[in-house]
Parts: sequence; structure tokens; C-alpha cells
Amino acid sequence: MKVTQGVSKVTKLDAQLSVFSLGGINEIGKNMYVVEYANDIIVIDCGSKFPDETLLGVDLIVPDITYLLENSDRVRALVITHGHEDHIGGIPYIRKQINVPIYATRLTLGLIQVKLREAGLLANTKLIEITSDSKIALGGITSTFFKTNHSIPDCLGVVFHTPEGAVVHTGDFKFDLTPVNNQYPDIHKMADIGSKGVMLLLSESTNAERPGYTPSESQVGKHIEEAFHKAKQKVFIATFASNVHRLQQVIDAAQATNRRLALLGRSMVNVVRIASELGYLTLPDGMLVEAAEIGSLASDRVAILCTGSQGEPMAALSRLSRSNYRNVEIHRGDTVILSSSPIPGNERNVSKTVDHLFSLGAEVIYGSSSVTGMHVSGHGSQEELKLMLTLMKPKYFIPIHGEYRMLHQHRILAESVGVEPANIFILNNGDVVDIKEAAATQSRKVTAGNTLVDGLGDVGNVVLRDRKQLSEDGILIVFLLLSKTDGKILSGPDIISRGFVYVRESEDLIDRASILAADTVNRLQSGQEPLNQWNVLKMNVKEVLGRFFYEKTGRRPVILTIITEI
Amino acid sequence: MKVTQGVSKVTKLDAQLSVFSLGGINEIGKNMYVVEYANDIIVIDCGSKFPDETLLGVDLIVPDITYLLENSDRVRALVITHGHEDHIGGIPYIRKQINVPIYATRLTLGLIQVKLREAGLLANTKLIEITSDSKIALGGITSTFFKTNHSIPDCLGVVFHTPEGAVVHTGDFKFDLTPVNNQYPDIHKMADIGSKGVMLLLSESTNAERPGYTPSESQVGKHIEEAFHKAKQKVFIATFASNVHRLQQVIDAAQATNRRLALLGRSMVNVVRIASELGYLTLPDGMLVEAAEIGSLASDRVAILCTGSQGEPMAALSRLSRSNYRNVEIHRGDTVILSSSPIPGNERNVSKTVDHLFSLGAEVIYGSSSVTGMHVSGHGSQEELKLMLTLMKPKYFIPIHGEYRMLHQHRILAESVGVEPANIFILNNGDVVDIKEAAATQSRKVTAGNTLVDGLGDVGNVVLRDRKQLSEDGILIVFLLLSKTDGKILSGPDIISRGFVYVRESEDLIDRASILAADTVNRLQSGQEPLNQWNVLKMNVKEVLGRFFYEKTGRRPVILTIITEI
Repeated sequence: MKVTQGVSKVTKLDAQLSVFSLGGINEIGKNMYVVEYANDIIVIDCGSKFPDETLLGVDLIVPDITYLLENSDRVRALVITHGHEDHIGGIPYIRKQINVPIYATRLTLGLIQVKLREAGLLANTKLIEITSDSKIALGGITSTFFKTNHSIPDCLGVVFHTPEGAVVHTGDFKFDLTPVNNQYPDIHKMADIGSKGVMLLLSESTNAERPGYTPSESQVGKHIEEAFHKAKQKVFIATFASNVHRLQQVIDAAQATNRRLALLGRSMVNVVRIASELGYLTLPDGMLVEAAEIGSLASDRVAILCTGSQGEPMAALSRLSRSNYRNVEIHRGDTVILSSSPIPGNERNVSKTVDHLFSLGAEVIYGSSSVTGMHVSGHGSQEELKLMLTLMKPKYFIPIHGEYRMLHQHRILAESVGVEPANIFILNNGDVVDIKEAAATQSRKVTAGNTLVDGLGDVGNVVLRDRKQLSEDGILIVFLLLSKTDGKILSGPDIISRGFVYVRESEDLIDRASILAADTVNRLQSGQEPLNQWNVLKMNVKEVLGRFFYEKTGRRPVILTIITEI
Repeated sequence: MKVTQGVSKVTKLDAQLSVFSLGGINEIGKNMYVVEYANDIIVIDCGSKFPDETLLGVDLIVPDITYLLENSDRVRALVITHGHEDHIGGIPYIRKQINVPIYATRLTLGLIQVKLREAGLLANTKLIEITSDSKIALGGITSTFFKTNHSIPDCLGVVFHTPEGAVVHTGDFKFDLTPVNNQYPDIHKMADIGSKGVMLLLSESTNAERPGYTPSESQVGKHIEEAFHKAKQKVFIATFASNVHRLQQVIDAAQATNRRLALLGRSMVNVVRIASELGYLTLPDGMLVEAAEIGSLASDRVAILCTGSQGEPMAALSRLSRSNYRNVEIHRGDTVILSSSPIPGNERNVSKTVDHLFSLGAEVIYGSSSVTGMHVSGHGSQEELKLMLTLMKPKYFIPIHGEYRMLHQHRILAESVGVEPANIFILNNGDVVDIKEAAATQSRKVTAGNTLVDGLGDVGNVVLRDRKQLSEDGILIVFLLLSKTDGKILSGPDIISRGFVYVRESEDLIDRASILAADTVNRLQSGQEPLNQWNVLKMNVKEVLGRFFYEKTGRRPVILTIITEI
């Protein structure tokens, strides 16, 4: 690993170092970054993200990996920094298109295995377990790792040592100096990496807008235990299943208050199983209790750990709040804790859940976590981002993992600790930074974008545009039968609609439209020669009916005219 | 007005006092309350609200006024407390169904007139201007008023004096003791009303979850002026057009920093015109400048007041942020102030707008108003709600104007200042509280609900359900022509789709489906007797194709089969 130190002017290769993202820049979600040197490509993370409400019917978004497919012979590895959905959620989809060895720590691999097994891809995927001490040499790139601290255990930052210098990817991190379960960040190792020289740093920007320092996860445990002590009946607590540190603190609070613990929600059950099997979660014997048994226990001897902290309509908490969960009920006087903050976009669903919980008579602990103490972020705030930049002392810097304003604020932070303004790159996904002889340039682009997963396949823009119009004003279908001989109407026009107007109340409207369509066709067909250009006929019917319905209803449905000739 | 004092046990009428909401309880928006005594009905407010993303294609929601239509001969007046959309936005729609005199203060009437004029209803609507000193006797109900303070001038609370006692409706309020433009709350009058006895209080709950006291509007002015002073180039400031106090402070800041002011956005132009014509806004001569002239002024001599503080995609700020506004551009170094807080549900749009503004190189002042000082709420916090309850000393209390958790917190506040727990009613829209001989009961209901406005008419649930399915997986239309004589296929089945799959890429899929449909029809028609029950035929085709497409694509489009017989 002799070439890893600082700016390696000794190596005069024709090859260059290139770095870019295929997902994760100008967005939160679907992280995927690429480090490329000469003949070798290493991919970092393979995340998914959820569509917003404009992407009608889309289930999931994963990165467009056209570039990787075009260069598949050079892709050596997929390295995963940690087990969150925005870093591993795309694996089953991408794995169908490209099969490369996946490197990750033990817990991360455990979570990936669940996904691959569900997709029937586990047997044919090479999974390689690493630790923060591993060293992987693949062609011209040697990767080493350092431990970071985040809202899931077993997180890594990665150093890519190349003849052009070291590239550091932080993964997601905070600097929690009093972490749960000894998941300490590897500050000494980071300092050492920085001392030896970092050509390029990619660092996450999630909390770049937040001043100060993110509180320690261990602070949350105290508040949870206090609430468990105070509660006179059952306690329900909802949090992200993947936050194993939080789960540990809930388990500890249950033990301290002599309560047994039930788990609700598939992902909660899965994560607790995997994390305790792999030793990341300490679960006292006999603590767990089945949901069906809750009713038979004294109400002050049981706690329920569940999914749904974002108000997701199908998750456990939301169903409990609507009294719609088999075997488990929230009673007047029970305590419900939301150990979370709403992710932007989820505020309404969370509020609705709280409304329902109050209407059941529950004591609900919700709202700003700075007031309740029931949640802390897993991402470092401004002072922590500055600490990472200071430890790494990079020559070049790319803020990643954030929307534009976060990248922008991260840039300002980097400048404040001495990174040259001209050496900071605010990119889009697909923008390539090339480094050669210690000089970085950004001028070229590779294909990058969203692959929209709906059901089993992907969907395109035409389909989405149609769905949008259908969703707004519905569809109207006009069908008629024309004579082959003289082009006259044999049957119809008949009109049916969906999502447009309630037909029983609008029969008259539809009847008049039908007459109008017939008049239009008759007028066009009564010329010297009947039109056999159906497109013209269709266009005319569409135009006449479009105008008619807009006048009468103010709506613009999709209008389809179907003509059969006989 | 001899019957207005306290509990009027002297009047032994058969009549009773009834109070309920047709909108505004368990929601923020579409406020409409009803006070009824014997033969007289008075309606308070007539608001609208915007649909959430589940109500596909719906433009606006207004109250269902079935009850008022069934009792239209008894409806004496519509009293409007203030000019916000959630209190006046439903007027043009409701006015088409029922025509009663509308009572409101001068500014509120000015805003209502704009709406009625646009709807062509102004000439035939009776508008009656009132002040806080007015007294209106309509049958058995006499109404008096008191000034409140809120984020729009000229707000009223209303007292309905009836033989059964006084009912107080607060309207929206805060207690701003250093208000802008002398819009003081009428505390002495409120104290007097309370002293004389209040049978029932309806008080707004918007900020019932917020501890403490809402800061004064005048605090915002200082921060705006400071930012105007600091700005080296143009300043853009976005806020709600209806917040006339805020507009005044922006005008003052522009004057103090020797900047001329341009107005962008239709509602901003409208409100400034109406409010300054009616004397609610003091606008120095020659201060306003047309958008087209901005370019010709020195950049530090101009400020732009615009709509779009909620990131609404078609409003001025959002269009400016996308460099898509005629004649006006945001340049590197310009300052943009968001003088607002995102309403829940708008966070993403606001964030996107900020992202775009940063990418233009603007200095953006955004985020928590407790940090920036650029916004305060127009609604009183917990201490103010307690103050109102203390002033009014009601026997009975109905928290209104809020979602369930807000009503719940308001109830706890009311109990804390001495209202009997059993005398507090947490209602749904349509739940009636009847008061007779000073005893209130809640047992009956009237019709209440949402009227969904789409284009020019309303839409029902069937139509919305269809739109939802269309929006998720699109539609597939199968059409075929059958012979009248033997039921055999003459032409088709042909299949077209919209919003389902991109057909050019899925020709093979569609071809196979078509064969499958033909097989299904042929099988059914090959029996001893051809089926002439088309429903059975359609059902079978739908089922076979539904299964086929779900298997192949994981989607469930709407499937319509159209059969023509000849």
C-alpha cells in the first residue's frame, strides 16, 4: 500500500481517478457512488428511496445503473457502508442486472441477506464479510475502512487508496462519544488517515443546516426509562426498526421497570431477530412475549415495541391507533411514545395517528424531540461535519447525501475550516470529478437518473403523464362502428367513463355528448368521399367533446375514441 | 337586549338553543358554525380548504350545507369573522345554493366582494358592513361583536344573545398587545361579556399544542428592516398576501432603506389594492414600481414583495426560483426572505424552492422562524387560550378550529382554568349541542361533510375511487365485435391502454393478452348456446386478463371490456 500517501506525483500513469454519484446528490435516498481508477470500478452503496405523491403508482426508486452495465467487466465490488434502506434498498433490483461481490460488515450483511432471500437471489450472490480492519486490494484500488457512529450499528467509512491519492467516503455518521453498545467512532484512525493525506473527501450533508452538535443516543434512553417508570398501564413505543441502539434502550427500560416486551411489525421482528442472533442486541431470556399473550398480563407489566413511527398507514402504530390490530388494543390511560421525528412529507400521517391515539384516550408523548427527549438524529450537525473535515484535511471536497441547500451549507462549513473554495464541487448525480496529477476537474457527465419500480417492472414518463391526467379528471371512451362501404355510423357512438363524472347523475350530459359526437362524425362523413383517415375523425371527436365537457364541467378528461369498421 | 345576561331562567319557552359546526372541527379549514334558536338560524363563516393528495383532481373542499338547505326559510344571516380563505373561501360555492345577507367588517367585505365579482354573484348578494360596535337583532338572536387580533386586520369575535343565554364565538385570535396599525384586541369588552355571563364558548384551538405566548407581530418588523439594511442588492420577501400587518412592515422597511417596492403575484396585488383603498395599509406615494421597471433601478434601491411563501409551484417565488418569471430575475448576491412557516404538508415544496434559490446564488433567509425572527403565528398559544377562557368564564365550552389533538389539548387547558370537565364537548362536525334551561346535552347529529369541488361541479366517492385506481396502475380497454347470429368474434379483441405500460416496449405482452381474451370468449361462446349475457363474458375477460397482467407486471389496471354486437 505504498502509493496511498498524499499526492502521489511519482506515479505518472495515463490512467486517472474518477469519482461520481449515481444517486444521493440533490436528494435524500438511493445512495450510490462510484470510484474508478484505470480498469477498476468500485461501487459504494446501493440504496432506494420512496416516491413522492407526484409519481403515481410507483413503489420504489432505485439508481439508473446504465453506466455500470456498459462497463460491467470493470466493476470489481459493491461496498456497503451500513444497513439503512437508502444504502441497501436497491440491491435486489440492481442485482438482477449486474452480479458483483458485495462487501459489508456482519450486521449489514445480515440485513442484505433478508432482502436477497426474499428476491430469490441469495444463492447466486457473493457476500463477503468485512470489519473496519479489513483491507481489500482490487486491481489499482485498495480499500480500507474506519468505524463510524450512526443510528444503526456496524457502520463504516471507506478509504480508497489509488496511485492518484486517497479518496475517503464517510458513509453516514455522527460523533457520539457516549454511544450505546460501544459503537465508538474510530477518531484516532480518522486522524491517521488525515495525517497521511486525503486527496478527495466525500462527506454526508443530512444535518448541514443544523447548528451545533447532535445529542448522544444514550440521552434518549434516560427519557424512555423515565416514561416507562411513570406509565401506570401498558406502554407502546414506536421507532425505526433499524435503530438497534434505540431498540436496546427500549429493552433496557423494559427490564428496569419489570415489563415484558412484545414486538409488532414485520421489520421490527426481523431486525430484533437478526441483531440479537448476531450479538448486536442483548435480550434477557424470557423477556419477549407474543402479541396474543399481552391481554393475559397485568397492564403495568408489559411494553410494546412497534413500527409505524412515521405514521405509515399500514404499519403497526397506525393500525393500533385505528383499533385495527389483531389481539392488541390501546386502552384509555395507556402510554404511547413516538420515539422519532417525522421525515419531511410524513407530518400529516404522523398527526393523524396522534389524533387517533388521543381519541382512544391514550397519553401520547409526541412532538418536537428537543422537548420530549424521545429522539435524536443519527446524523452529525454542523460542528461534527467540521470535525470530520478537520480530521481528514482533504485537498478536494464533494458534499454528498443531501438536497441542494444541505450541500450548499456543507460547502460553507468546509470553507470555514480551510478547504479552498475552488476545490469544493457541488455536483449533480452523474457529474464526474476527474483527478490527474493531483489536479481535479469537473467537465464530463455519465448517465444517471431514477429507475421507477412499479410492481415487477419499471415505468416511464409517458405512462406517468397518462396516470397524472387520468387521476385528475378521469377518462372518457367513445366507441362507434362504421360501415366499410359508406363510412356511415352503424352503431354508437356510445360513451363510457371512469373517474370523470358519476354517470347516473349525468346521463343527460352523456346523452348530449353522444349526439354531438354523432353529428361530428356524420358531418365529416357526408362529404364527397367518406373519410377513411380515422385519425382525423378521432381528432375531431376528441376536440368537440373536449370543448363540450370543459364548458359543462370544467374538467379535461382523457378522451379515447375507438372506431371499428365492418 | 334584556335577555342577554347569564343563565336566563326566566324565559320558559319550548324553544331551545342549538349550536354545531358544519366545518372546522377535527380539521383546519372550511369553518362553518351554526347557532340556532327557535325559528332563527345564524351561520358563522363559510370557509374552504385545500384537498390533500388523496383527493385526486379535487380543486377545493367546502362544507356540505344540506342542513341549511333543508331549513333555508329559517336562515337569517351569514356572519363572517375575518377575511381568511378558511373563513370566506366557500362563499361563492355556497352562495349558488343559498342566498342570505352577509355581515362582515369593511376589509372582510372588500375581500368577499372580489370573490363574488369573479363568480358573477356580486349584484344579487346582500352585503352588510358592520363594526365591533354593531348590534344585529334577527328574530330571537341578537348579535354583538368584539375586536380580536389576528394575522389579518378587522377581525371579530361574536356574541349571540338568546333567551337561553349568551354564546360566544371567538373567531381566530391572539392577544398581541403591541400590534401593528393599532389593531388592539378588545380586552375590556371581553371582560365585560364574561362578567355578564357566557353560557357557551366556542374558541379556536390552532395553537393549543404550543406552550407559552405567541410573539407580537411587531417583532417581525425589526428583523425585516435589519435584513433590508444588510442586503447589498435586491431583496425578495415572500409572505401570505392576506397578512396586511406583515405587508405594512415590509412597506415600512422598504421606506426606511430607501427602496422602491414591486408586487408580484395576483393575490398580493389584489390585497395591497383593497387594503390601501380601504385605509388598512399606508403606502407612501411613488413607492410602488412595476415589475418591468425593476431592471432599470439600482439593485440596492428595490425590494420585491411576492406570493409563494408556501412553495406553491405556480406562485411568484417558486417561479422566480426556477428563473421562470417574466421581467424579473434573481441574481447572485440577491437576498430572499421567507417570511412564513411551512403549513404541514408544504415542507417539501418549500424546501425545493429554497434549493433552487441557493442554486441561483441567492442569500436565503429561511427555516425555523424562532431562529430567523421572520415570522410569528397569528394564533394565540396556550397562555392566550387560557386568557380567553378566563375572560369569558363560560359554563359550557366547545373547542373548535383544530384537529383532534389540538381540541384535546384545548380541553386540558380549559380544565386547568376551571371549566367543569363534564361541560366540555369534543365534537365532530354535525354533532349538535342543545341547551335548554341552562342544561346542555349532546345526543343528536345533523348532516355534515365535505363537498368536493372539481372544476365547476362536485365529485363523489365513486369517481374518486376510480381516479385512485387509474392513477396507480392505469387503464386497459378491451373491445371486440360479436356476431348477433352465433356470438362469435367478428373483430378484435383489440387492447389499448393508458397509464399502464409503455406500449411500444410491451407489444408482445399486449399481443399475448389479446390471444388470451379471444380464447376466453371463444371458450364461453362455444357452448351449446352462445352467451348473450355480456356481463358474464366481460367478467371472465376481466378476470383472466387481470390475473395475466398481475403475474407479468405486478400491476392491477382498471380493465374495461367493450362489446359491440352486430
